[in-house]
Amino acid sequence: MSINFSEGNIFTDSSCQIKEEIFNTIFSGKNIKIEQIISSGHTSPAEGWYDQTQQEWVILIEGEAILEFENNQKKNLQKGDYLLIPAHTNHKVIYTSTNPKCVWLAIFFG
Amino acid sequence: MSINFSEGNIFTDSSCQIKEEIFNTIFSGKNIKIEQIISSGHTSPAEGWYDQTQQEWVILIEGEAILEFENNQKKNLQKGDYLLIPAHTNHKVIYTSTNPKCVWLAIFFG
Repeated sequence: MSINFSEGNIFTDSSCQIKEEIFNTIFSGKNIKIEQIISSGHTSPAEGWYDQTQQEWVILIEGEAILEFENNQKKNLQKGDYLLIPAHTNHKVIYTSTNPKCVWLAIFFG
Repeated sequence: MSINFSEGNIFTDSSCQIKEEIFNTIFSGKNIKIEQIISSGHTSPAEGWYDQTQQEWVILIEGEAILEFENNQKKNLQKGDYLLIPAHTNHKVIYTSTNPKCVWLAIFFG
């Protein structure tokens, strides 16, 4: 019996030089998508917000980052911090560390 | 507007002395459950297997571990390694490191 484990390592590419932010779908199933994101000083575009139709549960596995929400609330994230971003909760990333880079795991569902 | 972020940190309790393995549901929604697991030398019971009705996507965020599957296949997991355990894929944990402890994030869905 051969099992499809869809396996990998979340730190892949995190030690490389990157120009663009990396968004890598590492698992995709019915009503669920799991994404690896690597940021290094990258932030959201100055204009506009992320407005998602799905819920996003996100954890910062390495690095430091700051999220901003439309009600001006800011969240400082340290290594290991996680939170749920409910669907249609406008948000943006206003800071990501470069040393170490930010390694995110994001789960979109619902 | 108050947003319910259901937030926390995945390393919580990982620096404490633990006797029992910790299984902590950190998010629960429709058809999805996200669990923090902290193991320190703990393994599955010698008899029997984990046989789950849901798919499990699991990542080892810290530590080292070995999983065994019913076809005798073993998986050595290092920090950052993830894999999908399809529903009804019998498996057990036969090794978890103590220094550092194993910090797992497990997502059950479908």
